[in-house]
Amino acid sequence: MTGTVYLVGSGPGDPELLTVKARRLIETADVVLHDKLPGPELLESIPTKKREDVGKRAGGEWTPQEYTNRRLVELAEAGKTVVRLKGGDPFVFGRGGEEAEHLADHGIEFEYVPGVTSAIAGPGVAGIPVTHRDHASSVSFVTGHEDPTKDESAIDWAALADTGGTLVVLMGVGKLPMYTDALLSAGMDPATPTALIERATWPDQRIACGTLETIVEARDEAGIEPPAITVIGDVAATRDRVSAFLRNGVETETDGE
Amino acid sequence: MTGTVYLVGSGPGDPELLTVKARRLIETADVVLHDKLPGPELLESIPTKKREDVGKRAGGEWTPQEYTNRRLVELAEAGKTVVRLKGGDPFVFGRGGEEAEHLADHGIEFEYVPGVTSAIAGPGVAGIPVTHRDHASSVSFVTGHEDPTKDESAIDWAALADTGGTLVVLMGVGKLPMYTDALLSAGMDPATPTALIERATWPDQRIACGTLETIVEARDEAGIEPPAITVIGDVAATRDRVSAFLRNGVETETDGE
Ligand SMILES: C[S@@+](CC[C@H](N)C(=O)[O-])C[C@H]1O[C@@H](n2cnc3c(N)ncnc32)[C@H](O)[C@@H]1O
Ligand SMILES: C[S@@+](CC[C@H](N)C(=O)[O-])C[C@H]1O[C@@H](n2cnc3c(N)ncnc32)[C@H](O)[C@@H]1O
Repeated sequence: MTGTVYLVGSGPGDPELLTVKARRLIETADVVLHDKLPGPELLESIPTKKREDVGKRAGGEWTPQEYTNRRLVELAEAGKTVVRLKGGDPFVFGRGGEEAEHLADHGIEFEYVPGVTSAIAGPGVAGIPVTHRDHASSVSFVTGHEDPTKDESAIDWAALADTGGTLVVLMGVGKLPMYTDALLSAGMDPATPTALIERATWPDQRIACGTLETIVEARDEAGIEPPAITVIGDVAATRDRVSAFLRNGVETETDGE
Repeated sequence: MTGTVYLVGSGPGDPELLTVKARRLIETADVVLHDKLPGPELLESIPTKKREDVGKRAGGEWTPQEYTNRRLVELAEAGKTVVRLKGGDPFVFGRGGEEAEHLADHGIEFEYVPGVTSAIAGPGVAGIPVTHRDHASSVSFVTGHEDPTKDESAIDWAALADTGGTLVVLMGVGKLPMYTDALLSAGMDPATPTALIERATWPDQRIACGTLETIVEARDEAGIEPPAITVIGDVAATRDRVSAFLRNGVETETDGE
């Protein structure tokens, strides 16, 4: 009997932000295949004997996606119930779509189990709603780390600026100067509130605030490192109004304004 | 002692898609203030005596937001621990930002508890990843509730089309003809795969598929009603490749192509 693969979102890292379903599947699965993104606290809550790390470096290289794909098929064909645990939601910049295709191409049944994405929870725990009736009728999630093999940028930063909505950049710590410049060149207001949220919901969560113009400086002052979310838009100002009463844990804040 | 308000996301409706934290808070809260969006199955899992419905019609009118805001402050000032349960994630088109501001303005401490948004889970349960390495480097969530023919529309559908990314429309069943027209006028390919997912993760979930040009017909044939998610973009084609092996429950499908 071929096993089933569950493509499961872990949420941003707080073990309590797993869904009830994810918690149950992790408990009943034979194997949990994971990378580092779910974070140490959450991963430690999974019995070591059923964990398999496909995110570790081997000889200076990340485990290639091909290995993960192959391993999923292999385990399912051996009749195992497999949880493929991915940070946030499996279908948001997580290669979940590719894994689903690979499984289907090999005749393996799978189920998608959505999770809380860091793209919404990250800004949220900083007191920033990604949409707001008065400020944003849309929100766009975009990768700040494009496929380096692509000849030209697939991302139209000018079009994103033109939407007038909130922009949330994932994998966008290193290239922050590049895309903030692109947005400024596209005519976005330099005073647009901008925030970085590192390790959202982890015990060592950090936040750095500024504007589109000052956020690179704020990043450097705070020493913000991946994983972090960049949120750009008027909604980022809501933080000022609510943060004194917001009880979500925040360790450090740097204000680069 | 003033109580605390928890702005809690319920996820799309399957009670198992509550987070562990949401489940715990619902169990320990004095009062759970909710509307209809979390869906009947989830709401029935909450003890009746602590439920307070702020989504019901009174004399043909929805409970105004002002009432909900006032009630939250009143309960907290009476020392109650209050869960404000909102469909999906509280900060995605849910007035959660406004409620947070109202609480802060009145000196009430609150915590944001993120949830699984229908904007990602809806497409996902239909086998559609909102981003995909080969198809979409961005995804935009937008409200379909506005009339795009109005001069004062805050939504720039042409800019959204220009992003080249996936578009996910919430509250977009009724105005589907208007915004698909706006996107076609903006030059979007009429053959762009498009899908509607109604009551995602509810027992009576339904899906209708087509293209940007045929989706209105597919909606009418299937009789799709709110709440539903519209997903527009090449990622919607992933469904064809994976759906035979996808185990997420799907009751009905209409293919309008
Ligand atoms: C490959 S993407 C995966 C996103 C994930 N599927 C999700 O829905 O959150 C990795 C990026 O997600 C973001 N990220 C994930 N977890 C995070 C967290 N706890 N805090 C801040 N950013 C996070 C960072 O931008 C990171 O570079
Ligand atoms: C006011 S918005 C709230 C969105 C919510 N905060 C979220 O994150 O899912 C209401 C819209 O959400 C979408 N929606 C919510 N739950 C849904 C479900 N289970 N299936 C499909 N669409 C849903 C529909 O587009 C609906 O019109």
